[in-house]
Amino acid sequence: MSDPLAPGATIGILGGGQLGRMLSVAASRLGFRCHIYEPGANPPAADVAHHVTTAPYDDTAALAAFAASVDVVTYEFENVPTAALDQIEALRPIRPNRRALAISQDRIAEKDFLSGLGLQTAPYHAVTTAADLDAAIAAIGTPAILKTTRLGYDGKGQARILTRADAPAALAAMNGAPSVLEGFVHFEREVSVIAARGLTGEVAAYDPGENVHRAGILHTTTVPATLTPAQRTDAVLIAARILNALDYVGVLGVELFVTPQGLLVNEIAPRVHNSGHWTQNGCAVDQFEQHIRAVAGWPLGDGKRHSDVTMLNLIGADMDQVPRLARESQTALHLYGKAEVKPGRKMGHVNRITGPAR
Amino acid sequence: MSDPLAPGATIGILGGGQLGRMLSVAASRLGFRCHIYEPGANPPAADVAHHVTTAPYDDTAALAAFAASVDVVTYEFENVPTAALDQIEALRPIRPNRRALAISQDRIAEKDFLSGLGLQTAPYHAVTTAADLDAAIAAIGTPAILKTTRLGYDGKGQARILTRADAPAALAAMNGAPSVLEGFVHFEREVSVIAARGLTGEVAAYDPGENVHRAGILHTTTVPATLTPAQRTDAVLIAARILNALDYVGVLGVELFVTPQGLLVNEIAPRVHNSGHWTQNGCAVDQFEQHIRAVAGWPLGDGKRHSDVTMLNLIGADMDQVPRLARESQTALHLYGKAEVKPGRKMGHVNRITGPAR
Repeated sequence: MSDPLAPGATIGILGGGQLGRMLSVAASRLGFRCHIYEPGANPPAADVAHHVTTAPYDDTAALAAFAASVDVVTYEFENVPTAALDQIEALRPIRPNRRALAISQDRIAEKDFLSGLGLQTAPYHAVTTAADLDAAIAAIGTPAILKTTRLGYDGKGQARILTRADAPAALAAMNGAPSVLEGFVHFEREVSVIAARGLTGEVAAYDPGENVHRAGILHTTTVPATLTPAQRTDAVLIAARILNALDYVGVLGVELFVTPQGLLVNEIAPRVHNSGHWTQNGCAVDQFEQHIRAVAGWPLGDGKRHSDVTMLNLIGADMDQVPRLARESQTALHLYGKAEVKPGRKMGHVNRITGPAR
Repeated sequence: MSDPLAPGATIGILGGGQLGRMLSVAASRLGFRCHIYEPGANPPAADVAHHVTTAPYDDTAALAAFAASVDVVTYEFENVPTAALDQIEALRPIRPNRRALAISQDRIAEKDFLSGLGLQTAPYHAVTTAADLDAAIAAIGTPAILKTTRLGYDGKGQARILTRADAPAALAAMNGAPSVLEGFVHFEREVSVIAARGLTGEVAAYDPGENVHRAGILHTTTVPATLTPAQRTDAVLIAARILNALDYVGVLGVELFVTPQGLLVNEIAPRVHNSGHWTQNGCAVDQFEQHIRAVAGWPLGDGKRHSDVTMLNLIGADMDQVPRLARESQTALHLYGKAEVKPGRKMGHVNRITGPAR
């Protein structure tokens, strides 16, 4: 299937969180329907989807029915089990492709891939045993951070090693899982590039956004980022190199550290990304529609920005600010419809339009 | 119920067309769910609604279940039968209120109401019999247009009277329905004001848009309209006067003719309006979210525009232009997911961002 999908086609989305919710809304603007596959009950995406399947990822009958009902499959998070993907891929194209997903699911594979492209990353060293960890600390030094190679949830599966004395406890926290020791990077700022590659290979990128985190969770993204013209160009070229190397179709989020030694790739996400939410109120074609355009084989938007924007995440009790935020001029609310407020839970975001694009 | 609705509440929408579709999307941004009530199968709004009831407006059990499942009811078109509204209103608030709906459903009631506010309209005269029509023509002159007082669909229930000789055929075309003869207005341009009034009485208006029709259907709306500062102020004040007189809650569309004698009110629509679609890409809070904010008892957006926009409707075979339009920079597609293309059918629209707000 390489022809563009016609309006009326159905896009399958694995995962029903807020990213699936906003993808489904964007798909509706192009006349597409979305079918959400999500193990959890009452997912945010269900409020705005044509169809929802509530089933676990090992329900082969549900997966088969899901795949049969859609024209193409995409996903809103990286932790879809391999067997489910195998089953779906036998029936329908999965975009972005499996390689992008496999690489982003494994920290060592990701860093090996990025290094292989000649891109800078934080120093890293594979660790399974105490002897590995000793060798890794000897190579990288402290402070460093030990992480399971497979993606953890909500910062789980991570332990800081400030001195060698922390090593045994850190290793124990990995529970025997294959891990990677990463050196700390002293960076001036973190930026991210939201870029897309279409089915015919064209690439489009939004201008990089500057990210500020609080307690390990993205707090704000501001566009434009504070970057020199050369850094801005570098950032976009790095994203394009990754997209092309992966023969990627869809939107990719690339987190970069700005350091005196140049840009380091912190992490890639094979999907729409929280740091690209600003595009909803800064661009004619936002990252969600851009992703849908790519997976549907449509031409991409060019990434041009009409307005400068600061995106502010609403985490947990930040929901108390909604009545005040609703009164702010030039501020767009985006709430996710999650019934329960929990500490650290992403409940919504606001995009503050700060002026015409500079 | 005068407290603002909390996120998670459900808004009932009577009608499942493209306006309901875009209202449901806007509601999702504020964390609300929508329940669509629509007699027709597979309505456009169903693709993005939490729940859909497919039932006729005389199904009292379906209406009761619908009303019981929602917190407030609004509507996306004016032709909801009175008995259905009576039944719903006994259970849940209907916003905008019944008076606004009743007035907009009847051309004579609407013009009497507008005249009573001291606003100018086209000359008009009630007609039921041939004698009435003779008197009306004597009073208003020709050319004129005879219309049924109750709203017709797609320009049905209308007949032009260019000379007195056309009168008998025009009257026959009304099929005995109560009618109104309206004089032709020679206007320089048509503009419309999209304005809103909140539950606490505050009013907010978007800058007027300039409308161009083709074959009786809206073709483009351009913002800003070509108006003098005095005309711009007049237009907004007219809308505000109507909103306040009706104790209105929600978005109202007001079509105005610009004439050398000042602004004439052509028509009011107690709902979001095609000529306000530009707000989706010109404002942080668009007309759909503004309507949802009002009916939910939330503070209104201030109507400020960040970008100038030209909205182009895609009617019938205009859908063939979609592949080309998808490649245009700074152009946002909004397709309605209608399966069948028919001549004269509104299939979607595009908003072309023409620059920062002037």
